[in-house]
Formats: sequence, structure tokens, C-alpha cells
Amino acid sequence: MTPPDQQWQNPLRDPRDKRLPRIAGPCGLTIFGVTGDLSRKKLMPAIYDLANRGLLPPGFALTGFARRDWADQDFGQVVYEAVKEHARTPFHQSVWDRLAEGIRFVPGSFDDDEAFDRLAETVKQLDAERGTGGNHAFYLSVPPSAFPTVLKQLSRSGLTDQSGDSWRRVVIEKPFGHDLESAKHLNHIVNEVFPEDSVFRIDHYLGKETVQNLLALRFANQLFEPIWNAHYVDHVQITMAEDIGLGGRAGYYDGIGAARDVIQNHLLQLMALTAMEEPVSFAPQDLRAEKVKVLSATKPVGPFDETTARGQYTGGWQGGSLVPGLHEEGGFAADSITETYAAITLEVESRRWAGVPFYLRSGKRLGRRVTEIAVVFKRAPHLPFDSTMTEELGQNALVIRVQPDEGVTMRFGAKVPGTSMEVRDVTMDFGYGHAFTESSPEAYERLILDVLLGEPSLFPVNEEVELSWKILDPVLEHWAERGKPQPYKAGTWGPPSADAMLARTGRVWRRP
Amino acid sequence: MTPPDQQWQNPLRDPRDKRLPRIAGPCGLTIFGVTGDLSRKKLMPAIYDLANRGLLPPGFALTGFARRDWADQDFGQVVYEAVKEHARTPFHQSVWDRLAEGIRFVPGSFDDDEAFDRLAETVKQLDAERGTGGNHAFYLSVPPSAFPTVLKQLSRSGLTDQSGDSWRRVVIEKPFGHDLESAKHLNHIVNEVFPEDSVFRIDHYLGKETVQNLLALRFANQLFEPIWNAHYVDHVQITMAEDIGLGGRAGYYDGIGAARDVIQNHLLQLMALTAMEEPVSFAPQDLRAEKVKVLSATKPVGPFDETTARGQYTGGWQGGSLVPGLHEEGGFAADSITETYAAITLEVESRRWAGVPFYLRSGKRLGRRVTEIAVVFKRAPHLPFDSTMTEELGQNALVIRVQPDEGVTMRFGAKVPGTSMEVRDVTMDFGYGHAFTESSPEAYERLILDVLLGEPSLFPVNEEVELSWKILDPVLEHWAERGKPQPYKAGTWGPPSADAMLARTGRVWRRP
Repeated sequence: MTPPDQQWQNPLRDPRDKRLPRIAGPCGLTIFGVTGDLSRKKLMPAIYDLANRGLLPPGFALTGFARRDWADQDFGQVVYEAVKEHARTPFHQSVWDRLAEGIRFVPGSFDDDEAFDRLAETVKQLDAERGTGGNHAFYLSVPPSAFPTVLKQLSRSGLTDQSGDSWRRVVIEKPFGHDLESAKHLNHIVNEVFPEDSVFRIDHYLGKETVQNLLALRFANQLFEPIWNAHYVDHVQITMAEDIGLGGRAGYYDGIGAARDVIQNHLLQLMALTAMEEPVSFAPQDLRAEKVKVLSATKPVGPFDETTARGQYTGGWQGGSLVPGLHEEGGFAADSITETYAAITLEVESRRWAGVPFYLRSGKRLGRRVTEIAVVFKRAPHLPFDSTMTEELGQNALVIRVQPDEGVTMRFGAKVPGTSMEVRDVTMDFGYGHAFTESSPEAYERLILDVLLGEPSLFPVNEEVELSWKILDPVLEHWAERGKPQPYKAGTWGPPSADAMLARTGRVWRRP
Repeated sequence: MTPPDQQWQNPLRDPRDKRLPRIAGPCGLTIFGVTGDLSRKKLMPAIYDLANRGLLPPGFALTGFARRDWADQDFGQVVYEAVKEHARTPFHQSVWDRLAEGIRFVPGSFDDDEAFDRLAETVKQLDAERGTGGNHAFYLSVPPSAFPTVLKQLSRSGLTDQSGDSWRRVVIEKPFGHDLESAKHLNHIVNEVFPEDSVFRIDHYLGKETVQNLLALRFANQLFEPIWNAHYVDHVQITMAEDIGLGGRAGYYDGIGAARDVIQNHLLQLMALTAMEEPVSFAPQDLRAEKVKVLSATKPVGPFDETTARGQYTGGWQGGSLVPGLHEEGGFAADSITETYAAITLEVESRRWAGVPFYLRSGKRLGRRVTEIAVVFKRAPHLPFDSTMTEELGQNALVIRVQPDEGVTMRFGAKVPGTSMEVRDVTMDFGYGHAFTESSPEAYERLILDVLLGEPSLFPVNEEVELSWKILDPVLEHWAERGKPQPYKAGTWGPPSADAMLARTGRVWRRP
């Protein structure tokens, strides 16, 4: 990997000012699956936005690979339209022209040796024509079933050969397996071709500002860390709720479900960042060491019939419209036991967290689209008030909103105006969008740049992926034995078992 | 004192619901000094507002005493105009008519025995005509120099005689002396006539919502108390800043100054509420016990030349206008050493607070009108960030705004949007006025009702007054020896010595 100080730097910028984003050195990016939605809506616009912000090297090259009869210009036109429609930053013809010069296309299918040889040739030409210096990243925006073939082809055609200071990296999207065993198998296949430090697993939630803000919040402040432990925290709720249903994705989703799709990656990563100890530094290895430590100490709490919940949505009213149930939408097997709602109870076996339940839930067709981490505090050990005065006082909470409207809310008790000492819950709020004039880069912008920079902090490594499956596997196995999940009406907050799993200890889910 | 359950209760209200304000039992209030500003702008409107809210007993009587040739109706007209102009709640003719029936006036001067005999006669008649039941409060809205005479007259004319279950109470306004010795003398004079539990010393700051909210904030929540101590708090700043100058009050103010006028009472009371331990309950004796404990442990920190500051304002620009200095306004002795700005450093000698400076400041003609308590926290013991990333990170702070715009603000560090891990201060805010639909009663409304209810929680007792002077006396004596205070320009935040007293330990005043 090229050390940062050998990378290309804009001479007008002071490289010592770490507040400025670093600029990627000479390199190229090849995307497999350029005809997909992700590529068109997220990846191509993010590349333009990076170019527009001056964060790509002058000779940057973007290569597309797909089973289409396209010339470079045809692919260029596809990228152009994607940029025009979805880019975050304003369109500048000069930026586009410069980017377009480095756009290439290689037609072919994944089992076509010749196509990969042509790709290897194209990459070599780019090094000569555009000065990409042998540095290339390969973005596998393809189904996991295609991973082994593409990886083998990259290896066979010599595209993975790293020589001298140059680098080759691979980017893969979840799902990273569907249980511990398959994840180990996948990691094995990937690591046969790319060493682990060249593998970038995308979890776009980790590219969001609030996730990193969570680290800043915890470790830049004196206020929160003293109460961030089992002495003061009653429990933690981590929620990713979607209001949409499966729509056309039923084929992909059936057999996966909410736990594998969201809890295994996004929510366990959010949990790790919430629960981990202070890292020595934010250097990737230090951050990873703490995440691995906390994931190693995390266990699912049983008995799973009482501590977990599963559901499949049925038709119902949502946002003023009557929406169809899972089985009316089509594409989902009638006897499928795949859940569209999943909730689990975890415990972190550490001095800091022993006895504090972490409740993780995710579902489709819930009341509202929201992702948040709610740290709910115990009641004060004693309330020197008349009991009638605190009837409307709940538990203090610190809520980190990941989306939408990123920010932080604190709930606490305040005196109700008037002559009595009545206390009621109020909130104070910090909105990320209101507090800063700086705009947030899109998650993919951030993550693609990090891939090109070789900055791995925000990407889970194989160990984290495997630990996450190890946490989830016992629950998944239990569910597989239990058969069909409970139905829940679209627009509600999940099946009755979801409420029951908290009610057994006198707790309730937030209605965010 | 009548036990609460024997007091008159509206039969339509459930007396067990403590969230409802209690209603005063049969009683009357006599005000000395009804021609003054306080009486017209605050006391009379507050009495109407209480009547309007149904919190006064049906036969309530208001008696005015002054050197005016007025009949009852003339005084009624004065009250009527004051109510029309200054009342907080809407005017209802029926409420006014009922209140007006109980309005009496007794003309006379304080040294006129006959006038006080007439007052005694009036009070007796009210008991017979209005059913005030022998329960009477006497509000001394007069200069302290008149206290001894009025008190003696009340005693001589038998107005202080409490018989059976009936009560007599006296209300006095600050200043409660000008040093420890004079305060003891004044307390002695008052207590010769009224037992201490019948004395209500008005500090209208203690009637404000936020002051009581401070108690709710600290003791109804789990979040704040764990960090409310010397382990986490760096220092506390308590500020009462006025933007106005002395105007016509120079005669009253010369010889008193900012420390005696504000710090001795308002600010030391705010400090006591901020620093005290949790009371057993909010019953008056329990609350008072904690305030007395913390005031007993509070000492001024020296050397006073370095740890205190004094100033006199000169002309300057304030809010876009050129305003005159103290000595151009007239009424202030040219060689007066009375300060219009005072700041002192205190320490509370307790396990909780040892080593934490409490900075108290008050001044006239400062940058802006604001009263606040700022608890400033230490920096995090370690910042796992690059040092350039935390250049704009200050210290965490919890600010309780007493006026204007009552509420709570929390300052903490958040990540600046972008690809680097830069941290900057942001705030989250809770506004009392926005959070509740209930409106706040005016401080005097609350306090007058408490006098009539015999509810002494919000009134400092003689012991607190004397302890406060004991804290302040050494500083005042030092200042008296040092001569003239430093000048400071109107519209600034005080003299250079104010900044210097914090700078010596590397701290700065907030610019609220």
C-alpha cells in the first residue's frame, strides 16, 4: 500500500491539515454490475461528486464490465445520465469532460475468459495512457453467487497481481454469507485471491455521518462517558425501521429475511460502536480491535421463544394508503418462513455492560422510516418528590438518530410550570443539518474515496463478519425449527411477540 | 399555623391531587408602601391574577396603608388601574368586582399611632364582614430604614397577636442588612415581633420557574447527578447581567452596590441550589437544611486582589445607543467606591465540590440582560483524536437559563460533516416556553400565594441570610480598604480585572 505521503497531493493544499479530505492517488476503479440500480443511483453519482470536489486524481479511470454490446462512449452516456439525475453536487461540464476521458467499457460475461483478458489489457493501457500506476480497485456490485467466478477470473487474468508499490483492492457488498459457515467459506474464497487488507466490505450505514458522530459524541466529550455503563444504563434499543415493503425485491429477500439482511451487519455494527471501549486511536486497527472485543463478548439472550420476535407483514393502512401484504405482492413462497420483522435480545458480557439488554429490531412496513440508537437510562435511584408529581416522568434517554434528520435527542424530566413540583418528560435536540453549514457527503462518496485511499476504518473485516454470524446463528437455528413467523399489519410496529419480549421485563419499545 | 387540611378547599377539586395549586384559606393582606412601583407593577397585578385563577379565598381582603388622603374607593381605583395595565391574565369584571369588595385603605404615616389603631380596627372589621378569620399578612414594601418603626407599630397596636388557629405573617423585601452585623440586628428586630416561621423574606428570583426547575433537573433525572461533582465539573459560573444603568435609582444604590444588591441574595441562593446535596424531601425544613449546609461550607477564595473584581460603568455604546456613564447620570457621589459590577470566587468545602471554583458575577450596563447558571465540565481526560481535529472543541457545559427565555442548553462536541474526524462545539436546547402549554405564573404571584398558604420553601430564613453575609463580608471589607473600583465601558462585560480573575487559572467568562 502506498504510504500517504507518497500519494498525489494538490500542491495548493497543506497536506498536514488533516481537516481537509485527503485526495486519492493515481488509480482506477472497475465496476462489475454497471447495469444495476446501485451502480446507477449511488456509485456513478458518487464518483462524479468526488471528482467535482477535487478528491480524485487527475488521471482517474472508471471501467465498466457487463454483458452489454456497448462501446466506451455508450457506457459514458449511461454514466452521464446517472450523474445528471442523481449527483449530489452541481454539474460542471469541465469536471465531467475530464472524468469522461477516463471512462472505459469491457463487454462480457463472468465465465468469459477472453473478456477478463480484455479487461486486463484495458487496465494495462490505462496505466500507460492515464497514469493510474497499477493501482486498481474492483467493485463487485453483483449477487454473492457470482463472487467465486469473478474472483477466480480476476486472479486467472493476472488482475490481482500487486507489483512494487502498486495496489489491487476488491469491494464487496453484503450479504457476506447467510450463516457462520457460509461466511467463513466466502471469506476463504475472497482471501485466496485478495489479502484481507485489500478487501473492502461495504456497509453503507458505516459511511453515514451519525455513525462516526457517535464516536465523536462518546469520546470527545466529558458528559456522556461517565454514565455510559451498567450503573446508569437500563437498556439500549437499536432500531432500523422501513416503511416500504418488499416490492420487486421478494426474490432476493426470500430465504434471507430481516435478521440476515439488517441485524447481522448494520445493527450489530451500530451496537459495537455504541458498546465498545475507547480505542487507543481512530486508526483502523485500533478501532477494529475494540469492535472485535465487544462482538466477542456479545451473546444472544434466551429463551429465544420469549426474548426474540419474528413477523411477516400483512396488508394494512400505511401513511394513508392501503398497502398489500407480503403474500399479495407476489414473488414470495406461500410457505416461506423468512421474516420481514426481526427483534433479538443481546447481552455484552463485560464489566461495563453486564446485565444491560441490547434490543435490536428491524422490519419492513413498520410505522415509519427511522434508524436510531436509544440509550435508555435507569430511573433515578430515589425521587424526593410526591409520587403523584412524577406520574408522567419516564426514563431519561439519549437517542442518536441515524436517519432521517440525523442528530441527537436527549429526553429528561423538567418541572411543569405552575405552583406544584410536578415533573414531566421533555426533550432537547441537536440537529446535524441545522448545526453545521458544511454538508454531509453521501455515504458511498465517503466509502469509495476510502477504498481508493486504502483507508479501512469504516469497513468490517472478516473477523467481525464471522463474529456477527456467531452471535446470530443460534437465534436463526431456533427460528428455523419454529416454522412460520407471526403476522403483523402493515403500518404497525411489528407482531405481538415484539411487545411481549420487552414486556416480560417491564420495558416497552420506543415509538420513534 | 392552620394545617393544610383544615384550610378552605374548593369542594369541586380533589384535595389529594397535588398537581393542582392549593387555594389559600380565609385571609387578608395589608401592604405598606402601596404608592411605590413594586406595589403597582407587581403586587397588585399578582393579587388579581391569583383571584382570577381561583386561588384566593372568597372573602379575601386587600388593605392599603400610605400617607395619602384616600378613601377605600380611591385606593380601589389605584388597584384597578394597576391591574388593567400590568395583570398577566385576562380581565374579568366579575372577578374584579368580587376582589374590589374586599379592598380597604387606611391613611397615615408610620409614626402615627392612631393610624395603626385604625388599621387594627379595619382588620377586625374584615374578620367580621369578610370572614378573614384573623389571618393576616403584612407586606412591608418600604425602605429597610422604616422596618423597625412599622414592626413596632404592628406590635403595639396588637396586629401581631395570633390567637387560636389564626395567623399573622410579615413579608419583607431585600436588602436584609448590609453586612453580617446589621443583618443580625435586623433579624433580631423582626424576630422580636414575629416568630421566624411567620417571616417571609422575598427573593423574587426564587419564585422563578427555572430555579425550581433546577431542583427538578438535578433530582428527577438519572443523567445529571453522576457528573455533578468535582470529578467532572471544572467550574461553575453564575451570572446576573443587566443592560440597564442606575437611572433614577442612584440614591438607593450608592453605598449598596452589585455585591450587596444581587450576589448576597439572588446569586448565593442560586449557588446553594446548584451545589446542595439531595434533600430528604422538598418540604421547607428539608430544603432549608441542605441550603444551610452548603452555605456553611462556602468560603470566598483569596487573595481578593486577584480573585475578585469590581467596576463602575462609564459611558459607552449599548444596543446601538450611546449611553451615559454612572457619574454623568447624577445622584451618585463623585468619590463613591460603590461598585456597579462585582465578581467573586467561592469554594464549597465538601467532598462533592472541593477544588471547584464557583464564580459569581453581577453588573449593570453589561453586554446583555441575562441570568444563568453555567456548569462547565472538565475536558475529557483523554482525546483519542489528532490534536488538529479538536482545535475548535471547548469544554462541555450545561447552562440553566433563568432569564430571559428560560430553559436549558447543553454544549458538547460533535463531528463536523465531512471525511475527517474533526470535532466542534454544538448545542442542544430545551426552551421552557416551547415545551409546555402551561404558562408560568409570575414570580410574585407564586410567592404571594405561598405567603398566604404559609408555604415557606422559597423564602430564605434568617440563618441563610446571615450565612450569606458571612461569606461576603471578608470581600466587602477588603474592597472598602482598596478604594475606587475600576471603570468599564457600558455595553462591555465588566472591568479588566474581571477577565484577569479567571485568566489566572486559564479560564474565561462565558459571553452569554
